[in-house]
Amino acid sequence: MSVRVGVIGAGIMGADHARIIAQDLPAAELRVVCDATEERARAVGEANGAYDIMIDPMAMLARGDVDAVLIASPDETHADLTIAAIKAGKSVLCEKPLAPSSEECLRVIEAEVGLGAQLIQTGFMRRFDAAYIEMKAALDVGKLGRAVMMHNFHRNVEAPEWFTGQMAISNSAPHEFDIARYVLGSDFRSISAFQGETDGPVAPVVMVIEGAQGQLVTIEVNNNAAYGYDVRGELVGEKGSIDLGSPVYAKYNLGLQSWERFEEDWRPRFAGAYRAQNKAWLESIQKETPDPNAADAWDGYYATLTAEAGVESLTSGVRAKIDPIEMPQVYADRRRR
Amino acid sequence: MSVRVGVIGAGIMGADHARIIAQDLPAAELRVVCDATEERARAVGEANGAYDIMIDPMAMLARGDVDAVLIASPDETHADLTIAAIKAGKSVLCEKPLAPSSEECLRVIEAEVGLGAQLIQTGFMRRFDAAYIEMKAALDVGKLGRAVMMHNFHRNVEAPEWFTGQMAISNSAPHEFDIARYVLGSDFRSISAFQGETDGPVAPVVMVIEGAQGQLVTIEVNNNAAYGYDVRGELVGEKGSIDLGSPVYAKYNLGLQSWERFEEDWRPRFAGAYRAQNKAWLESIQKETPDPNAADAWDGYYATLTAEAGVESLTSGVRAKIDPIEMPQVYADRRRR
Amino acid sequence: MSVRVGVIGAGIMGADHARIIAQDLPAAELRVVCDATEERARAVGEANGAYDIMIDPMAMLARGDVDAVLIASPDETHADLTIAAIKAGKSVLCEKPLAPSSEECLRVIEAEVGLGAQLIQTGFMRRFDAAYIEMKAALDVGKLGRAVMMHNFHRNVEAPEWFTGQMAISNSAPHEFDIARYVLGSDFRSISAFQGETDGPVAPVVMVIEGAQGQLVTIEVNNNAAYGYDVRGELVGEKGSIDLGSPVYAKYNLGLQSWERFEEDWRPRFAGAYRAQNKAWLESIQKETPDPNAADAWDGYYATLTAEAGVESLTSGVRAKIDPIEMPQVYADRRRR
Amino acid sequence: MSVRVGVIGAGIMGADHARIIAQDLPAAELRVVCDATEERARAVGEANGAYDIMIDPMAMLARGDVDAVLIASPDETHADLTIAAIKAGKSVLCEKPLAPSSEECLRVIEAEVGLGAQLIQTGFMRRFDAAYIEMKAALDVGKLGRAVMMHNFHRNVEAPEWFTGQMAISNSAPHEFDIARYVLGSDFRSISAFQGETDGPVAPVVMVIEGAQGQLVTIEVNNNAAYGYDVRGELVGEKGSIDLGSPVYAKYNLGLQSWERFEEDWRPRFAGAYRAQNKAWLESIQKETPDPNAADAWDGYYATLTAEAGVESLTSGVRAKIDPIEMPQVYADRRRR
Repeated sequence: MSVRVGVIGAGIMGADHARIIAQDLPAAELRVVCDATEERARAVGEANGAYDIMIDPMAMLARGDVDAVLIASPDETHADLTIAAIKAGKSVLCEKPLAPSSEECLRVIEAEVGLGAQLIQTGFMRRFDAAYIEMKAALDVGKLGRAVMMHNFHRNVEAPEWFTGQMAISNSAPHEFDIARYVLGSDFRSISAFQGETDGPVAPVVMVIEGAQGQLVTIEVNNNAAYGYDVRGELVGEKGSIDLGSPVYAKYNLGLQSWERFEEDWRPRFAGAYRAQNKAWLESIQKETPDPNAADAWDGYYATLTAEAGVESLTSGVRAKIDPIEMPQVYADRRRR
Repeated sequence: MSVRVGVIGAGIMGADHARIIAQDLPAAELRVVCDATEERARAVGEANGAYDIMIDPMAMLARGDVDAVLIASPDETHADLTIAAIKAGKSVLCEKPLAPSSEECLRVIEAEVGLGAQLIQTGFMRRFDAAYIEMKAALDVGKLGRAVMMHNFHRNVEAPEWFTGQMAISNSAPHEFDIARYVLGSDFRSISAFQGETDGPVAPVVMVIEGAQGQLVTIEVNNNAAYGYDVRGELVGEKGSIDLGSPVYAKYNLGLQSWERFEEDWRPRFAGAYRAQNKAWLESIQKETPDPNAADAWDGYYATLTAEAGVESLTSGVRAKIDPIEMPQVYADRRRR
Repeated sequence: MSVRVGVIGAGIMGADHARIIAQDLPAAELRVVCDATEERARAVGEANGAYDIMIDPMAMLARGDVDAVLIASPDETHADLTIAAIKAGKSVLCEKPLAPSSEECLRVIEAEVGLGAQLIQTGFMRRFDAAYIEMKAALDVGKLGRAVMMHNFHRNVEAPEWFTGQMAISNSAPHEFDIARYVLGSDFRSISAFQGETDGPVAPVVMVIEGAQGQLVTIEVNNNAAYGYDVRGELVGEKGSIDLGSPVYAKYNLGLQSWERFEEDWRPRFAGAYRAQNKAWLESIQKETPDPNAADAWDGYYATLTAEAGVESLTSGVRAKIDPIEMPQVYADRRRR
Repeated sequence: MSVRVGVIGAGIMGADHARIIAQDLPAAELRVVCDATEERARAVGEANGAYDIMIDPMAMLARGDVDAVLIASPDETHADLTIAAIKAGKSVLCEKPLAPSSEECLRVIEAEVGLGAQLIQTGFMRRFDAAYIEMKAALDVGKLGRAVMMHNFHRNVEAPEWFTGQMAISNSAPHEFDIARYVLGSDFRSISAFQGETDGPVAPVVMVIEGAQGQLVTIEVNNNAAYGYDVRGELVGEKGSIDLGSPVYAKYNLGLQSWERFEEDWRPRFAGAYRAQNKAWLESIQKETPDPNAADAWDGYYATLTAEAGVESLTSGVRAKIDPIEMPQVYADRRRR
């Protein structure tokens, strides 16, 4: 049976998700597009043949003809909407972050634990990217030996003027935190954050994380890299390493240069990952069991918690501990499977 | 409205097409899977939730609940099935070749011209591959100046024992013939074919084609390349050139080597192209107008004709002319649009 | 003992050789720089601390304080100077071509055979390039299995206006002819040449050579490639292939592109090869035995002969045989060692 | 005039230097090879045609026929030998480190300052590597905008069993410290060091350095990388970045992999850099003025000082200041030129 999906938020990400749901995934039906701004809801709804559009998400959650909800509204609404959705019995795919503070994430976790069912998937789509999948598989089958380091580089063309180093950690880095934790299969002990200086826009931030088994994870977040959208990664094991590739379809030879293109933003790079993530989400709903690779609410909490520690270290100038609450049974059970 | 598709042929390609139609393309419904061997039809049909399975393609063509037919049966059946399908008013996507001989291709063309409507798309899926699309776009916008050469390399891991150099030209090279003609936007004047010698399995074939505007097209077909499935290409213009990329997701550093993987066959390399091709086909049916980039019956004829000239040159040892019939008005009209 | 070298010709190549002899090779002493234009001789001589400069090469060949001669004068003088030099008992490194016609090459061979000693090395420096050396070694140790193809691409930024397709074959391609013959360790049967058409400058030439063991060798010479100096090559064996690399020291990430530089001419690409070639030449003089890898007069003849057949094929439109004289005993003996 | 060189130390590095001096650099004469073990001195001396061999370096320094001394003896002898050499009026190229402790480095500096002449070059040969030269040039001409980060990765195949993380900082990292300081043209403020954990051999060390203009420099030293000798680097500016290349001469396509070779140690990677460094040293002696790009005694001191701070940080767990003495006038003057 088709899963009837309501999308909350019709901004860039919400529009993308609506398109994927409607045009790429036969397992789903785009039932409702919901946005506080009616014109946005209408534009995205019509472009993708949605059955209905709405402006009130709570009203949408009350509908009987919506099975699952994809939350792509502003970050500060994620926790409340997620909680309301699962209380209404809807499966949720919540865009990252699960919530901007670990405290709010814990509210979500409490609600889900209270329900006794796992209904929440957090939108860390990199877990479904072909490059990270190949990297993790190489580690898991033993090709690299024990993991000893992971290097991560996240670069955007340009950040808004009001962007800060703390935002680099809390807004951009969570993708890196989650994928490093997922690929390594390991929690973190501590984080040390450093920020450079520039004359102009926000300077890059470098972080060093100590993993629970003594791995070192480095993360660079450079939101003003200027030259292109560029995500790099390397996983280093005792026997060798694996570098993240990114699909390149053409090499130009012109004007004394041989060059490949960079994209201007993240969407082409992770188009396949978003599609695979959403497909896995739909299948998990149909099978009534969480996808084994998807991030859940606990992973959403862990990423936000790591970001908070990163900001703390940047402020204090010394390393900060990453100190989560005890993992509720339901999440521990899932990980044992 | 969903396009109701019947797939004829449940071999490797047919199974792949059925999967794409059923699982990746909301615009279609997999109505029937048809194969002379009932078990094959059933296996593929069930795996992809087909509404029905059949063993007689002619009976399938008579059904009112099938709008369009995807022909992936043995090559020698293509012409007759395509003709029968369009006479039954069905839209057709025929796997390459349109027919094994140019004479049969002309029968198909005659039938389609007689109908006065373009219902046939030929399965040259490379036209929908991201790498060739970028290559063609670079030429079309003038980045490379006038095209002067195109180099094409087609390599398989291993050919069956009974494979011959003539088969390399008539079975493997047509993809190269079509994509070179499509990217260059130019017909061909002549072809010269050369075959090497080996102690063992079939030796590679090298062809040099002269294009209608004086371009040189080289094609290597190496069906026993042993090391991997590898398609390479380069388009050379007066100002520069563009090399075909292929998506690489990981670089391994192990044992004094830095390496990337080759695939063992063509499916991973062209997975996106098949999907995009079939999507374009469905949209062309919904819009009742041929896709502007898709290969039509004339293109199918031209590729087979080029292959025949290639075989002639390999046999005679001298260059062979490529001498098509005059293009029927319906195909000329389409190209003018 | 130092080898006292006289350089004939103080043009681009002669100046480069003088610099290498004087500044990079302790085994040599730059004794004389000779050029018909005295100022050129003086400029190059002084820049490299030559002991003397001269304008008459024949007078230089009569000197007792010159052991060896490096001929980098205009092509049409190569044969006479080489013959005069070896008759004067000097060892010779003659820039390619040994002579512009196979007839003249045979005069040189006759002279050397008459002397009963091998004193001539032909300046096919690619045999000393790290990339071709690795390629040949991979074949020779059996990594690739039997060789079945070799693809060669030679691209210059721009040819002079008066350049023709025949010159592409007789002036540019001999480097490709020699290196293919050397890497494959095989003579040639035939050559087929094709030339494209352009509106403007000389169009590229494509050649297909059939090797003596049934290998296919393709050669593209594109003297107006515009985008950079670019030499590519691939050796294809039954088990796999090897692509020629070229040293790249930096990858720039700027302006939505990731790029590497092309050089504008051949000197940076083959700087190491020239140096290694000249070093091997000096050592062969000190050891009084030809370098096992260097091209000799026979190789010079073979390259010119192949070029003549290539021009013949381009003119006639059919394949041309490559039909050398019987190899004189002295060259055959060397190859058996 | 030829520079008459004495080489002290006939181990791996000394033998390499003797070979370069004797066989690659016409500007030098290998006068003496000196090693406490006479057989080693003899082996290296004979292989490279040295005029004499000796076992006592002090006796060698007293010779009138030695103009310059290349010190490649054990690290702990560097300071004393360098001081003795310059007091004997010899020019010195001292292999890194100038001395294992900053205190000893200061003794050397004091001696050189006392002489009033710059006679010491420190063997940080990467400054003469084509890749770093291109990287620095790109920055200096403004291509990258202001430098904001530099990432450095140093990987060996295998460290001796007794190797420690502190040694990774004091023995391996100084090359990275010097090249980062040289490329950036900037001193350092602080260093933070982290070490991973492994079951087996010494775990990698990661360092984060804050540069004097707010740049962030990351350094990974992985002495048990297993997969090959691999030096990577990236310089990130406000406008873009540049990745360090390394020369690759062949790409193999075999067994479902496309691969390039890694070297087992540093010598092939930096062969050109050693040669260029030694050539620049000889020219600086002939011109009686230090090479503008070479590392001097102050640079040797700075690298050792940085290593000491790195070890301090690794031990304390917090960032350590890098706090040099005031730069003596003679070094400041050189930098102003």
